[in-house]
Amino acid sequence: MRQGSLRELNLALVLGRIAAAPSPPSRAALAAETGLTRATVSAVVEDLVAGRLVTEAEPTPRAGAGRPARGLVLAGDGPAGLGLEINVDYLAACVVDLAGAVRHHVVHRADLRPVSADDALGRLARLAAGARAIADEQGLTLAGAALGVPGLVDAAGQVRLAPNLGWRDVPVPELLAGHPPLTAAVDGVPALVVENEANLAALAELHAGAGPDNFLHVSGEVGIGAGIVLDGALYRGSRGWSGEIGHIPVRPDGPACRCGGRGCLERYAGQEAILSAAGLAGADLPADTAPTRLAQLAEAGEVTVLNALHEAGTALGVTAASVVNLLDLDTVVLGGGYAPLTPWLRPPMLAEIDRRVLTAAWSPVTVRPATLGATAAAVGAAGSVVRRIIARPAGWLARVGS
Amino acid sequence: MRQGSLRELNLALVLGRIAAAPSPPSRAALAAETGLTRATVSAVVEDLVAGRLVTEAEPTPRAGAGRPARGLVLAGDGPAGLGLEINVDYLAACVVDLAGAVRHHVVHRADLRPVSADDALGRLARLAAGARAIADEQGLTLAGAALGVPGLVDAAGQVRLAPNLGWRDVPVPELLAGHPPLTAAVDGVPALVVENEANLAALAELHAGAGPDNFLHVSGEVGIGAGIVLDGALYRGSRGWSGEIGHIPVRPDGPACRCGGRGCLERYAGQEAILSAAGLAGADLPADTAPTRLAQLAEAGEVTVLNALHEAGTALGVTAASVVNLLDLDTVVLGGGYAPLTPWLRPPMLAEIDRRVLTAAWSPVTVRPATLGATAAAVGAAGSVVRRIIARPAGWLARVGS
Repeated sequence: MRQGSLRELNLALVLGRIAAAPSPPSRAALAAETGLTRATVSAVVEDLVAGRLVTEAEPTPRAGAGRPARGLVLAGDGPAGLGLEINVDYLAACVVDLAGAVRHHVVHRADLRPVSADDALGRLARLAAGARAIADEQGLTLAGAALGVPGLVDAAGQVRLAPNLGWRDVPVPELLAGHPPLTAAVDGVPALVVENEANLAALAELHAGAGPDNFLHVSGEVGIGAGIVLDGALYRGSRGWSGEIGHIPVRPDGPACRCGGRGCLERYAGQEAILSAAGLAGADLPADTAPTRLAQLAEAGEVTVLNALHEAGTALGVTAASVVNLLDLDTVVLGGGYAPLTPWLRPPMLAEIDRRVLTAAWSPVTVRPATLGATAAAVGAAGSVVRRIIARPAGWLARVGS
Repeated sequence: MRQGSLRELNLALVLGRIAAAPSPPSRAALAAETGLTRATVSAVVEDLVAGRLVTEAEPTPRAGAGRPARGLVLAGDGPAGLGLEINVDYLAACVVDLAGAVRHHVVHRADLRPVSADDALGRLARLAAGARAIADEQGLTLAGAALGVPGLVDAAGQVRLAPNLGWRDVPVPELLAGHPPLTAAVDGVPALVVENEANLAALAELHAGAGPDNFLHVSGEVGIGAGIVLDGALYRGSRGWSGEIGHIPVRPDGPACRCGGRGCLERYAGQEAILSAAGLAGADLPADTAPTRLAQLAEAGEVTVLNALHEAGTALGVTAASVVNLLDLDTVVLGGGYAPLTPWLRPPMLAEIDRRVLTAAWSPVTVRPATLGATAAAVGAAGSVVRRIIARPAGWLARVGS
């Protein structure tokens, strides 16, 4: 093995252990865990500290004699990830540092349906430039960006279809290339990754650490998307187009859907369907306030709203039962606009799941709200950048000359 | 790294290359591919040959001067896998050698629904003992066994539920332990693995090499099971209970199913539903001849049969559309009793898929019959044993003293 790649492996090994450790590990503990010599660990840590990837934690007093243990933690003042999101009625940008802290977060509300893709991306670029300026002020270097969109994205980052935005074949990277670059060039970290927003929200939930290794994360917005986490990793599918749960038929002869099918879940549990069943179709609520409004009315015992949520929960339960029968998952996480509605969606969902899932008798399925709120996709996007650096720190160190 | 584990790794590396090579590789080619020295490759190959895992292929004349190249292939006279299957109306046993050849295959027809699990397993043990005797005669050593059952199997090999057999909480390994052992003790190869038969059939299809890396394999028997192959590996789920496609609701308010749900796929496309719709409910055809009979009648243009297959295909298509929307797969393989009915099931399936799958416009979904017929589960079971030996040859070599 070449010396260079051995160093790269050791850097990644040690940094990965520091990132995963439940409490700040000492150099000696890292040597014991990795099987590397203490001298090698010290040299590797020195490189990581010089590159602002790792720092010494505040010393904690140790029981007994001797110097306090000096644990190592991920640094919060080096590289950071830029997370972006375009959704039907808002844009968002956020900055997450290597230690996982959200250092900046901004949401810009605007109905993007009547706006051209070019115009929407221009607005996003301005929002991102603002986030970059703030990161600069804080001494952070944006190493890469990821953008969540509510649609199907191909390997080149082109949005093939985003039905609720009315986008078809939008070459996002090309359109954004007309704007000033947002991130530093780092080997191994793409300047921009475009990804389905439901996938990013599921990733955020996975790394928030609350969930099990296998779960379905359902994001309820104007459309309904899902991210599938299997064995602790996002399952993207052959082309990254997995999780189109909104177009799973609930009733094959049901009402026509804008996708061309009939009786899709979106027609029963999408935000517009719920608002319409709740008698709020004309209320013109922004998508992100609609769930709060629905929750308030349900809390107040408004019968039409309770019925609308019961119907939506039943449809979600039928679909969730299909997914659990197919994938043997034990947790369904309700994200996005569904999170605040969990108290009303969960009972009918569980009723359908208990009735339809073959294995529900031995292993009850958990339905719970997402840990992160509506910010999940942007935070997940920024986190995906940060994890790329942790997985391969050599690229970053080469850039900063360490 | 310890010397012992280095040898184990090299054995597995070289054997894996020989197994995967499109044509018999020479020692020199193996050295070039693996990065090992030619001396190491020669020593490793000597061990593999001595242990009857590898043999020299017939020399093929080379263009130009020099000795003909002596390629290496997997041996067909060493360890072998025993594959077993219990289904609703038959038992099967087969022996597959390391080179993948089916050396013995026997199917014993019997309706097992009125039979106790203990009795059924006793019959299976006798079938397996016969297969072992034949393997012995051929100079093969059975290194392990795998058993496919149409139900949910837990990690201990207990069948939690097999609805169509009427089994619940059947401790298969315990019941089989009362019979003489069937296989040799080999480190790293379990004496018996119990697995869902639809999963094994999907594995067989994967290793038959005809399919892509991601596909859904649907086995149509009395029940309907599915195996999901993602990224070239079987996806088993949290507890191995994935693929219960037969209980995905097609119409949530449809007819009651024996699982306790309503409108399950099995009620529309299970063998009994098809026979009943075809007016053959009382015909008392054995499950394995029913598909052939249906195909003959469809071929002859029998309208009730054509309509029954159209209805079943439509229900399969609605369900397949859900799976493709969820998992972004591009191939659905029709296995078991569905294979011979593919010409009639495929058109209505494709109609539903085209209408309901969001991405069908860019990437048409393929529906095709399985490569292996009704034998797929038993062959898949035996193959899973053989692949364990290939993945870790040191266990076998230790047993034979190489």
